[in-house]
Amino acid sequence: MAVADGGFRALDEKSLIEYIRATPALSSLLGDDLRALTVKEVGDGNLNFVYIVISSSGGSIVIKQAIPYIRCIGESWPMTKERAYFEALTLREHGRLCPAHVPEVYHFDRPLSLIAMRYLKPPHIILRKGLIAGIEYPLLAEHMSEYMARTLFFTSLLYRSTSEHKREARSNKFDLNREERWREDATADDICNGKGQQQWGSYKAGKQRRGEKNRSKPAIIAEYCGNVELCRLTEQVVFSDPYKISQYNHWTSPYLDQDAETVREDDILKLEVAGLKSMFCERAQALIHGDLHTGSVMVTTDSTQVIDPEFAFYGPMGFDIGALVGNLILAFFSQDGHSDNGKDRKVYKQWILKTIEDTWNLFHKKFISLWNEHKDGNGEAYLADVYKKPELWFLVQEKYIKDLFHDSLGFGAAKMIRRIVGVAHVEDFESITDAERRAYCEHRALEFAKMILKERQRYDTIEQITSALQNIPS
Amino acid sequence: MAVADGGFRALDEKSLIEYIRATPALSSLLGDDLRALTVKEVGDGNLNFVYIVISSSGGSIVIKQAIPYIRCIGESWPMTKERAYFEALTLREHGRLCPAHVPEVYHFDRPLSLIAMRYLKPPHIILRKGLIAGIEYPLLAEHMSEYMARTLFFTSLLYRSTSEHKREARSNKFDLNREERWREDATADDICNGKGQQQWGSYKAGKQRRGEKNRSKPAIIAEYCGNVELCRLTEQVVFSDPYKISQYNHWTSPYLDQDAETVREDDILKLEVAGLKSMFCERAQALIHGDLHTGSVMVTTDSTQVIDPEFAFYGPMGFDIGALVGNLILAFFSQDGHSDNGKDRKVYKQWILKTIEDTWNLFHKKFISLWNEHKDGNGEAYLADVYKKPELWFLVQEKYIKDLFHDSLGFGAAKMIRRIVGVAHVEDFESITDAERRAYCEHRALEFAKMILKERQRYDTIEQITSALQNIPS
Ligand SMILES: Nc1ncnc2c1ncn2[C@@H]1O[C@H](COP(=O)(O)OP(=O)(O)O)[C@@H](O)[C@H]1O
Ligand SMILES: Nc1ncnc2c1ncn2[C@@H]1O[C@H](COP(=O)(O)OP(=O)(O)O)[C@@H](O)[C@H]1O
Ligand SMILES: [Mg+2]
Ligand SMILES: [Mg+2]
Ligand SMILES: [Mg+2]
Ligand SMILES: [Mg+2]
Ligand SMILES: [Mg+2]
Repeated sequence: MAVADGGFRALDEKSLIEYIRATPALSSLLGDDLRALTVKEVGDGNLNFVYIVISSSGGSIVIKQAIPYIRCIGESWPMTKERAYFEALTLREHGRLCPAHVPEVYHFDRPLSLIAMRYLKPPHIILRKGLIAGIEYPLLAEHMSEYMARTLFFTSLLYRSTSEHKREARSNKFDLNREERWREDATADDICNGKGQQQWGSYKAGKQRRGEKNRSKPAIIAEYCGNVELCRLTEQVVFSDPYKISQYNHWTSPYLDQDAETVREDDILKLEVAGLKSMFCERAQALIHGDLHTGSVMVTTDSTQVIDPEFAFYGPMGFDIGALVGNLILAFFSQDGHSDNGKDRKVYKQWILKTIEDTWNLFHKKFISLWNEHKDGNGEAYLADVYKKPELWFLVQEKYIKDLFHDSLGFGAAKMIRRIVGVAHVEDFESITDAERRAYCEHRALEFAKMILKERQRYDTIEQITSALQNIPS
Repeated sequence: MAVADGGFRALDEKSLIEYIRATPALSSLLGDDLRALTVKEVGDGNLNFVYIVISSSGGSIVIKQAIPYIRCIGESWPMTKERAYFEALTLREHGRLCPAHVPEVYHFDRPLSLIAMRYLKPPHIILRKGLIAGIEYPLLAEHMSEYMARTLFFTSLLYRSTSEHKREARSNKFDLNREERWREDATADDICNGKGQQQWGSYKAGKQRRGEKNRSKPAIIAEYCGNVELCRLTEQVVFSDPYKISQYNHWTSPYLDQDAETVREDDILKLEVAGLKSMFCERAQALIHGDLHTGSVMVTTDSTQVIDPEFAFYGPMGFDIGALVGNLILAFFSQDGHSDNGKDRKVYKQWILKTIEDTWNLFHKKFISLWNEHKDGNGEAYLADVYKKPELWFLVQEKYIKDLFHDSLGFGAAKMIRRIVGVAHVEDFESITDAERRAYCEHRALEFAKMILKERQRYDTIEQITSALQNIPS
């Protein structure tokens, strides 16, 4: 994983235009007339710079560049810019598995930690902002359950052999710095999607002409071990800092001072969090997104797109499912802070609960369908020969899903807690300007999350969760 | 992990002598007079060739060579000879952590998959043979608990940071083919054991003189992902084959025909085995030996040496503890088959039970001591700041150990089952010549193992296990 820092420079609007002009893969996407490019930095995330680039002829791209520290904190908190490599790798892999819900990657420049991808045009907005605005997305549960079922199932041992999982799932397309190679490899990759033997043939022929050796297959779990710095950031901000005094923690003070202290003193809660943290660090169950909150999803009424997988690694599936569900629950609790501007949020809260139910239930259904469909495939975790009896097959799947449900509840609750008493908060609450009111919403969310984290084993269905939410007195 | 097969040749007694003569690191160990070397192949294991080499001047070494298939089955079952690399790497790492109980590695030749190590001289014998002979080893529990506590603790997240665990624990000493480098590196490694700054200095100076760059730190979990073929062998023979019809399975027929079928039809058993298999494949808890049965331990009354870690990888700690304890329980059940040759085995059976108790209880004690000793170290799994309150610290450790106990029971039971109805059996039973009597011992062991595998959560202490063993009617 030794990549020289050599060649890195942080771009700005001006130097980005020069970079695009000098990079045929990008300039060709933007059309011939490069004199009239408009570039706008729109990064509202915590870590990186994101530019929208539009040409006068109607072409458009998004450029994301990682810098070697955490943007919202500054150079005092260094963070490897290699995260862009893992983001590109994962956009590619998850995009291959679920192209309908992942923006296409056009180009990746490893020395610059720069990704060019499809611009998700307006009316696409960040899901979190839609939830704050009270907008219903009728296809959200359908789409997100599809994304999670496909990306998690196909990168798990239910679909892959252990060898594919640990070592040789596919060849590494990213260890190439010249964009020509990137594009050639993109062609090679198209084959995986069945786009034609012809292109693959000419790709190989080209390589042979130049006398290049076949690159060795890369590590898969092994490769993502390289994203450990981002994992450690999660370990710290999700599983450790909220449970101790930390300079980065904050909360709506003074209202939540007691709540924050109670979290730090809750032995049972901390015992449970330790178990989740171990699972996060040790269990390579699937290639997870790693940061799947409602700020990593862009939506319109028809379209749902998952962005920003820079925290991706082989981890527990429940961490992704829990991130999404936990952030939907945060949105639910924040509604009482948004309901005074003439618009009643009662109906909207019901839509959120329904979306939570549908997301899990559709995920469950789709995941099981994929598993049944591929039960005679490469996956060796549950050999058909051992588990073929229908009632046993059912039993095994029920147990897998039940465990996954409990993991998801645990991780979801941990993610809720950290957004209320940890370093990075969510706009759902932050946008409630009346501090006392905000604190009230946060307090209720925190109590619910603590209860779920400690008692999740007692819940068997998502409806039990949503009715618990329903029954919280105002 | 791409290593050319180029350069490999299977050695025999004669070519081995030539190899030794041509290899200064080895010939110097054996003394000056290489005319009178005696070489004897003693491999009684299932996979590899092992040679004892003795010179007339009193020098001695053991040479182990892996071949690209499974020795006891033949070329029809290919198996990467790269297993020798992981064995060498692990002997080195475990030897560094617990030098008293791991033979020293003198030399490793990766193209030849050849390891030279310390010859464990007579009266060292394989522990399994000692158990069959009814010999008591008063220090066995003390030594094995020490080995397991140290190797498992120091390679876990209780001691290491996540970065050290996944990516950069120590530099890779084995990717060097020239034995001079190996020896230089051995010198460097000695420093880890505190053998003196002087040698380290001259090592570094030597490297600088030759203008060598510091080699980049290797992957750690990532590196061992390369040993996936050996993991898959375990997955197959321990967690899958015994639970289905397989050409390799066998048992004491006809006596155990019904027992074997019952195993294949036991839904609850197979549900539990699936959970253990997932844990084996997904959970990178520590650098485990991977094959820690009583045939991988050589003993005298004073000395206990762990050999043969070719299955090593980052896996669940309980797999090692369970292997040892499960094989001691097999030894216990086999005693009734050995008690007719004039010697009463009642007392010996009590010694085995006591050894099982002591092994676990001493392991527990030592593991917790190491954890307490290093609680302010690099390990981030349980930050002192979060868990500092003494009663919480205690609670957390109790939970960790309880989970580990249940994992160990589960894996131990699975290992017992596979030795009775799977491909590879144990000499403890195989040496009972009367088939009916053997089947009787095996049947009782199998029943016990199935019960433990299904009901292990109900056991809290090792004494509950040994008294269950005690109370089985003859
Ligand atoms: N492909 C895209 N199309 C349109 N807008 C995007 C795209 N990718 C990112 N953005 C915008 O940039 C913001 C930050 O992007 P994100 O990938 O989440 O960066 P960070 O890693 O810093 O959180 C998003 O919230 C979104 O508004
Ligand atoms: N260092 C050693 N000193 C003495 N005998 C050894 C040594 N290593 C292995 N042996 C002998 O060789 C046998 C096979 O070695 P082992 O490493 O278990 O090979 P395998 O991987 O084929 O099981 C052991 O059972 C033991 O009798
Ligand atoms: Mg983001
Ligand atoms: Mg973010
Ligand atoms: Mg991000
Ligand atoms: Mg052996
Ligand atoms: Mg072996």
